[in-house]
Amino acid sequence: MEKEPLLMLPGPVPMPERVRAAMMRQAINHRGAEFGAVYADCVRVLKTAFGTQNELFVISGSGTAAMEAAVGNFGRGKKIACLVNGKFGERLYKISQRYGTAIEIGSEWGTPLDLAGLEAALQDGAEVVTLVHNETSAAIKNPAEKVGKLARKYDALFVMDGITSIGGDVVQADAWGADIAVVGSQKCLAAPAGLSAISVSERAWSRIAENRPYYLDLAAYRKSAGSKIMETPYTPAVPLFLALREACLILEEEGLGPRIERHRRLSSSVRAAAEAWGLSLFPTIDSDHAYSNTVTAISIPDGVNDSDFRGTVKKMGIEIAGGQDHLKGRIFRIGSMGAIGAPETLATLAAVQYALVKQGFRLKGDGVMAAAGVLG
Amino acid sequence: MEKEPLLMLPGPVPMPERVRAAMMRQAINHRGAEFGAVYADCVRVLKTAFGTQNELFVISGSGTAAMEAAVGNFGRGKKIACLVNGKFGERLYKISQRYGTAIEIGSEWGTPLDLAGLEAALQDGAEVVTLVHNETSAAIKNPAEKVGKLARKYDALFVMDGITSIGGDVVQADAWGADIAVVGSQKCLAAPAGLSAISVSERAWSRIAENRPYYLDLAAYRKSAGSKIMETPYTPAVPLFLALREACLILEEEGLGPRIERHRRLSSSVRAAAEAWGLSLFPTIDSDHAYSNTVTAISIPDGVNDSDFRGTVKKMGIEIAGGQDHLKGRIFRIGSMGAIGAPETLATLAAVQYALVKQGFRLKGDGVMAAAGVLG
Repeated sequence: MEKEPLLMLPGPVPMPERVRAAMMRQAINHRGAEFGAVYADCVRVLKTAFGTQNELFVISGSGTAAMEAAVGNFGRGKKIACLVNGKFGERLYKISQRYGTAIEIGSEWGTPLDLAGLEAALQDGAEVVTLVHNETSAAIKNPAEKVGKLARKYDALFVMDGITSIGGDVVQADAWGADIAVVGSQKCLAAPAGLSAISVSERAWSRIAENRPYYLDLAAYRKSAGSKIMETPYTPAVPLFLALREACLILEEEGLGPRIERHRRLSSSVRAAAEAWGLSLFPTIDSDHAYSNTVTAISIPDGVNDSDFRGTVKKMGIEIAGGQDHLKGRIFRIGSMGAIGAPETLATLAAVQYALVKQGFRLKGDGVMAAAGVLG
Repeated sequence: MEKEPLLMLPGPVPMPERVRAAMMRQAINHRGAEFGAVYADCVRVLKTAFGTQNELFVISGSGTAAMEAAVGNFGRGKKIACLVNGKFGERLYKISQRYGTAIEIGSEWGTPLDLAGLEAALQDGAEVVTLVHNETSAAIKNPAEKVGKLARKYDALFVMDGITSIGGDVVQADAWGADIAVVGSQKCLAAPAGLSAISVSERAWSRIAENRPYYLDLAAYRKSAGSKIMETPYTPAVPLFLALREACLILEEEGLGPRIERHRRLSSSVRAAAEAWGLSLFPTIDSDHAYSNTVTAISIPDGVNDSDFRGTVKKMGIEIAGGQDHLKGRIFRIGSMGAIGAPETLATLAAVQYALVKQGFRLKGDGVMAAAGVLG
């Protein structure tokens, strides 16, 4: 078998061998003490990464399932203010439309959020606020703490999507007032795709909706997690839990602080490369917004064909991401997520640099050496 | 590490090594041709096992998620007649209560369904009928074809839970008029827990609800599966898909007919053992209902303590199931599901026979030898 391509995407990301090997095990009974201990390990470590002491559950479903659990359990029939400056903010808005009265507070993708618009919606009675902390579609980091303060000021519940920041960037769900926070398994945690986790504050529990979805009913999750042996209400994706536990133990061994610092250094090195090449970073940031710590979006310069360009990179065994929806052809994105380090990043930047030159782009300077300067 | 216990449960079941090894792979991009081919392999084989030519999708969620997908996409706001003679029929009723006007047509667990009651509900305007084909909680096989005919007579949609029969018993979704049918991965398919699949007829598509759940929105599944490369709408549980593909290829190599016959022989041997011991099978069957092909429920005789009895079996490295809910302590259940054969079944029956004797039960005869007579 040919070597797998190196996935330098904003998820899924390469998994350490320990994580993959954990899935080889024979089936175990998910109503037993051993599975309960696996689940408990995941919860313990994830609470640290979330920055929360709230109850936390692992869902057998992707990040989108956790987003729906948030909105479906706590937004039903309510006025929901949805901050949108990228694809995943939009997704939370679309989910909210199915459960309540959703108000889109939109900005161009990758530009600062309309916080004044949010305050107006809150004054107008919005009871739930949704935010994507790290919007990978545009590689922008949104001001979660500020949004949390606004939500609290008007006594609204704050739903924070930390799918691509938790485990790779500073997240303080409790300090920021995130009543509900969610993460995905195949992003900064470097576990396989297919699981997500969600934390729920006491404040949120006291406002849980009457008519909830079934598979994603968090009251059922709470009941099952609270029994003698930790359980899930319905059959969990056991191999993925075994893998997530390994990924969590690796996070614990590395330490959350050093792990975030590693992500920071890697994404800084990618930004240094872009600057050296003379390429523009895509997001428009301000004092509230920052470049993402886990993915970098770079504008594609005139004359460079997106698919040929990424095709050249792929020929060298590396997959980077294009833009999504209307950003397709306008940006490319490089992940700095999970278990990767300097070797993967340098290889990727070298391949990108070669592909840019091959496309006829005149580099301002050597991005690979600039990145090495950050990493060395 | 100690050897894993042998799971002789009505799911999860032991997985062949090929299936488990498939999960060791490095992460792959789920928006690529390779994943599309994996998904397509699963769909091709599952259609055969379902007995359907309808569209079929794999969901990253357990059988309960597929049940909710059925009801949530096709039952919203409708009158739903739910046939119940066990725990999973009850679950479909509970899910239906969250989406429409659910009518429970109940019988004692493990006794024949009330088909006259169903016809009355249909005459009274029920638009959807739900049925569990193989009710593992009571080890009874319900008359799916007859229910399908009744549903069609009154132009209702027929939702059939084939979670524990598909791949291990004869299922003819199309011939029986099952507009929606579902299966779980960790049952007769012998794949890991965490996936389910659902088939949808043209008739059902034409009646899809307006306001659907999001993660389980089958219109989104349809759109993504219909693109050039087969995709899922949201991030799928990739390692589980890789494992399910192997499990499906194994099913194809064995052949569906021989596989069903193997399940039939194994469950017959367990019933033969029970009869030889002088124990009663739990379900009450009639000309419409039969003993399950994939799990056998046996009444616990007076004087035998359920948990001590199963504890003795477990000491020998074998897990059998007790009863659920109000049947706890009244029955024990032995799975004949998935990839197991005569060795696992004979070992289990020997351990059970020993444990019965240890509990002071006076065997009428030698159940192990009776089972060997069926298997040899």
